[in-house]
Amino acid sequence: MLTVWALDGIGEVHDGDDLVALIADAAGDTLRDGDILVVTSKIVSKAEGRFVTASDREDAITAETVRVVATRTTPAGHTTRIVENRLGIIGAAAGVDASNTPEGTVLLLPVDPDASARSIAKGLRQRTGAAVGVIISDTLGRAWREGQTDTAIGAAGVHVFEDMRGKTDAEGRPLSVTMPCVADEIAATGDLVKGKAARLPVAVVRGRADLVGELDLPGARSIIRPAERDFFHLGAEESWKQGYAAALAER
Amino acid sequence: MLTVWALDGIGEVHDGDDLVALIADAAGDTLRDGDILVVTSKIVSKAEGRFVTASDREDAITAETVRVVATRTTPAGHTTRIVENRLGIIGAAAGVDASNTPEGTVLLLPVDPDASARSIAKGLRQRTGAAVGVIISDTLGRAWREGQTDTAIGAAGVHVFEDMRGKTDAEGRPLSVTMPCVADEIAATGDLVKGKAARLPVAVVRGRADLVGELDLPGARSIIRPAERDFFHLGAEESWKQGYAAALAER
Repeated sequence: MLTVWALDGIGEVHDGDDLVALIADAAGDTLRDGDILVVTSKIVSKAEGRFVTASDREDAITAETVRVVATRTTPAGHTTRIVENRLGIIGAAAGVDASNTPEGTVLLLPVDPDASARSIAKGLRQRTGAAVGVIISDTLGRAWREGQTDTAIGAAGVHVFEDMRGKTDAEGRPLSVTMPCVADEIAATGDLVKGKAARLPVAVVRGRADLVGELDLPGARSIIRPAERDFFHLGAEESWKQGYAAALAER
Repeated sequence: MLTVWALDGIGEVHDGDDLVALIADAAGDTLRDGDILVVTSKIVSKAEGRFVTASDREDAITAETVRVVATRTTPAGHTTRIVENRLGIIGAAAGVDASNTPEGTVLLLPVDPDASARSIAKGLRQRTGAAVGVIISDTLGRAWREGQTDTAIGAAGVHVFEDMRGKTDAEGRPLSVTMPCVADEIAATGDLVKGKAARLPVAVVRGRADLVGELDLPGARSIIRPAERDFFHLGAEESWKQGYAAALAER
């Protein structure tokens, strides 16, 4: 049995706010060993003061981008940029966020979401005495499927993959090929109670204490597939153009 | 508050089994209006008799494939095929499944998972009196991120996307760009209680009755992005080769 709820009473988060104190106060004495908190990256960014002025939005996206993966411009002139950001995450606009931010500003992702998760998890463990895990979530689009799901961009004190090695299916055959990304599944679960329109940036997921462990477990960075092992490291059109140009260069 | 649990007591499923009866018996009188059931595609396939003999595995993958998206052969000779199957789903091995099936057989995906979901939802509504939604889940890999998550390949009686049109963020700005794929998030949530090694193929998700509706809502087919609008409709290496060949052909 899994129970999942959003913490009430976390108001607007500002630069310099102590997230551990805000979350612990909102949780009261409800946190238990093995609970996993899903914290929306936006409030982590706000507490870390990751604001830039909105006039710099395109500059901010460029600064956060290490590699352009795909771009398209519609006939109407609207350009979509899918990029790899400095965290290795592939998504639109490099995680630069213009919703739910003060007028005239946009928000960058946390500098190091795994470190932020570790700091929050450590602080909550000290303050509440409960051995909790922390996942920092962001809303990402995906290849092949419409819409977005919440995914884990930071994690601490929680296994991001469920280790099926050595486990067998009901017929006794090994399940080694399967490596469920439970951190992404937990982030998705959190989104179902947090809601995007409400000020409910933190969810508690209770019932998978088996996934909670030491603070130095591999973080969400380990979920990202290195580009050299990814079949889709570059958009199809961009790859086509590179192949075309390579053939021309050989003439 | 969301509560999620797996139904106990659904044993091995066989060709011709009545899934509505199996699920209703396992649920007893626990189902309520607005509950969403996440049903592992494997038991739907089994009930629909979608077995083929294991010696036909490669043939079965080929038959289920409408388009090869990417292939790689390792130096050791192991080939990975990412393909689009006849349902439009992009994944490894076209959904042909060799785990948890009787020795000597593999299992194909349901013929029409949205139709299967509709039939199960309709049957459960009639039999239990509870207006439930049904999602049929499958475990899929993804671009850019390691591991797999459970996703929705069939749906009935449930909104697959949360409609944010007309909603605003906390600052009053429209959230129209965001279209959370709640069906995939619910499928992922179900995986956290079902587990791959246990015989727990059905989860109940309670607490998002607002997403449950008529049986003729758009199904999971509507989640699939048409190839012509997908930036990653073909593997980077395959696209490169096509571009290269196109330039050569112009000589």
